[in-house]
Amino acid sequence: METIRIGLMGLGTVGSGVVRILNDHQDDLSRQTGSRIEIRRVLVQDKEKARDIALPSELLTQNAEDIVGAPDIDVVVEVMGGVVQTKGLMEKALRGGKHIVTANKDLMALHGAELLAVAQEHGCDIFYEASVAGGIPIIRALTESFSSDRITRMFGIVNGTTNFILTKMSGEGASYEDVLKEAQALGYAEADPTSDVEGLDAARKMAILATLGFRMNVALGDVSAKGISSVTKEDILYGKRLGYELKLLGVAERDGDSVSVSVQPAMVRKSHPLASVNGVYNAVYVYGEAVGETMFYGPGAGSMPTATSVVADLVAVVKNMRLKVNGQGLSKAYKEKKLQSDDRIFGKFFLLLHVEDKAGVLAQITQAFAKHEVSLESVLQQPNQENPKAEIIIITHDTNLSGMKRVIDELDSMDVVNKIKSVYRVVG
Amino acid sequence: METIRIGLMGLGTVGSGVVRILNDHQDDLSRQTGSRIEIRRVLVQDKEKARDIALPSELLTQNAEDIVGAPDIDVVVEVMGGVVQTKGLMEKALRGGKHIVTANKDLMALHGAELLAVAQEHGCDIFYEASVAGGIPIIRALTESFSSDRITRMFGIVNGTTNFILTKMSGEGASYEDVLKEAQALGYAEADPTSDVEGLDAARKMAILATLGFRMNVALGDVSAKGISSVTKEDILYGKRLGYELKLLGVAERDGDSVSVSVQPAMVRKSHPLASVNGVYNAVYVYGEAVGETMFYGPGAGSMPTATSVVADLVAVVKNMRLKVNGQGLSKAYKEKKLQSDDRIFGKFFLLLHVEDKAGVLAQITQAFAKHEVSLESVLQQPNQENPKAEIIIITHDTNLSGMKRVIDELDSMDVVNKIKSVYRVVG
Repeated sequence: METIRIGLMGLGTVGSGVVRILNDHQDDLSRQTGSRIEIRRVLVQDKEKARDIALPSELLTQNAEDIVGAPDIDVVVEVMGGVVQTKGLMEKALRGGKHIVTANKDLMALHGAELLAVAQEHGCDIFYEASVAGGIPIIRALTESFSSDRITRMFGIVNGTTNFILTKMSGEGASYEDVLKEAQALGYAEADPTSDVEGLDAARKMAILATLGFRMNVALGDVSAKGISSVTKEDILYGKRLGYELKLLGVAERDGDSVSVSVQPAMVRKSHPLASVNGVYNAVYVYGEAVGETMFYGPGAGSMPTATSVVADLVAVVKNMRLKVNGQGLSKAYKEKKLQSDDRIFGKFFLLLHVEDKAGVLAQITQAFAKHEVSLESVLQQPNQENPKAEIIIITHDTNLSGMKRVIDELDSMDVVNKIKSVYRVVG
Repeated sequence: METIRIGLMGLGTVGSGVVRILNDHQDDLSRQTGSRIEIRRVLVQDKEKARDIALPSELLTQNAEDIVGAPDIDVVVEVMGGVVQTKGLMEKALRGGKHIVTANKDLMALHGAELLAVAQEHGCDIFYEASVAGGIPIIRALTESFSSDRITRMFGIVNGTTNFILTKMSGEGASYEDVLKEAQALGYAEADPTSDVEGLDAARKMAILATLGFRMNVALGDVSAKGISSVTKEDILYGKRLGYELKLLGVAERDGDSVSVSVQPAMVRKSHPLASVNGVYNAVYVYGEAVGETMFYGPGAGSMPTATSVVADLVAVVKNMRLKVNGQGLSKAYKEKKLQSDDRIFGKFFLLLHVEDKAGVLAQITQAFAKHEVSLESVLQQPNQENPKAEIIIITHDTNLSGMKRVIDELDSMDVVNKIKSVYRVVG
């Protein structure tokens, strides 16, 4: 039986999961691939560090060249992260004819197209299922299962940290600050949570999903991102009262040939399948013209779930090696990128306004919407408990984003409006 | 550009969807496969029948031999249904070197192993994503995405007709008979609904899923099936009151080397992702040791969703043809089949009993559970409105199926128990 020699770069959470699966399922994997998959070398930062993993110490190296430049490595499994230096190493590996499996969303969101081109040039595979939504096989779904469909809409809960925070805030009526601290204590949020809570991590994943789903190179810079750090418990409470759950949502939409991709907190109607995706779980909702509504749900992170996706990719690479067809199944983004302008992006919106509590205010405010031809689905006015002002919650009908921006500018200039507290997209 | 010649067998709901997708997405498909996919011949029952589909009439034939025996057909797309005769035709096609894409769950549940063997012998592909859960790519998930994991549990809502009926009964408090009539009027249920409502259709799909997920040949006869025709609105009402939704659930479980597969109405806890799968939608929940909880949700039937899966398979076949690797990726059920005995099948159970309304009844009944070491999670006794008897609703803790059967026999023999109205598995 042929032996396929793996160079594993990174032995953190995901890397140790990969070692564990390869150890535990050697027989099953051999049967599926007709090959023995063997970890030949492992890149670590510190060879001497004590590790709770069954791996002969002579496999460890602190020098990346021992893997990317080594003649006795067939496949590089990159689970160490990083962008600039990692990109250089991956290119070197590909040029040396090594196939790549990576879990690195930053790398793929920023340099995916370049790396895919180098891979194809050298007849190499580069697979990255684990880079988006951990254990959920969404990349394979987009590239293979829906290959015959035209995907027009993808909504993703693709960041577990923020979904944990919002779920807790919703369930317990707790504040953002308190729940963030709890998430940090539990290890669900980093000490510096910026990348998660400001939607940057989700934006990278949405760039990857949009590129695959729409078959055009959507760059990270094309994705507008807004996070959850200004979400208050009032927002969530009022949303719930009207039948919505607030979720940090990646939204990728196609209208004709043009697309728009964004990440923002959005009010998701409770009957929508995404509304009940709770805690650190992820889900991606995909709408295709032919298939209709589908959703893929599962763990978005974690050692073993992410490692499952890595090893599934590894199995695909090894099968391709045996069939000698590597580099031929790469999904190409062959469509010209066209981004949608704001006046063609449509949606419903939720607004929470702090206003003066006096006669005629509601008339003035609704007049501002009417002026810009934004019609309203529901309006709720109530006195605010904590200060003398009143609150107005408005949900619009479908309107375009530029019209909505004009309404907001107008509201902002009105004396009776003390504060535009929140504006969220509404989904479902 | 190479032309791949398709013989389409069947031009009903799914067949016309396939024609539509191939017509609408010819360019996209060519780009993905590097080939032109051309429908060369179409098998129909009546050539003269008026059809609302853009297809030259000279492509139509009433003779299956014109497809399975024709030298100018590369791939057979079988969407006509049937078992015995269809199996013979598929074998002939495979022996002639034709690849097969089929949506036929009956055929695959009954003869999948044989057909896969013939396909492999002749270097042919046989793909059948559309046979289970229409537009949901669950087969690809099991065979590729979770190839490196050990799946221990699959729960499936895999029959849209029964899910529509149960959803309506739950939402409107309507009776089974009334909703069945409505489903028939809407075309969601057949004039003879037996196959759907008695769980036979779901059993076929679960046999296919279990075979793939557990990698052992689970035959249709190995799947115990119970349907929903005896479900009453009281069952659903009492379930809801305790926090459950009643669903017709396919259950495939592995314990060590042994498996059990069944279809039955089950009480699904409302917080479980399957509980909110409503209407004609399908969903499959998969638990893998490494990946943990995942769920795949989407349309379980319908012309375009099912056709999407068919054409995705067709794209895979065509790619394999270009790479000359057909027949090599077939998923093999290489594990010896071992079925679990009842005393090793564990679960929680919901019971609804009609009992005499007199002192000491509850003590006698709970004593019957204690005797067989089945412990109880919750007990609810209430007077029954419609007759002089009382009702007792019991939910057990985890217990084995044989212990549960002994309890039921004992309850059945007790004078104070007028009727064991319902027994359902509890999930979640």
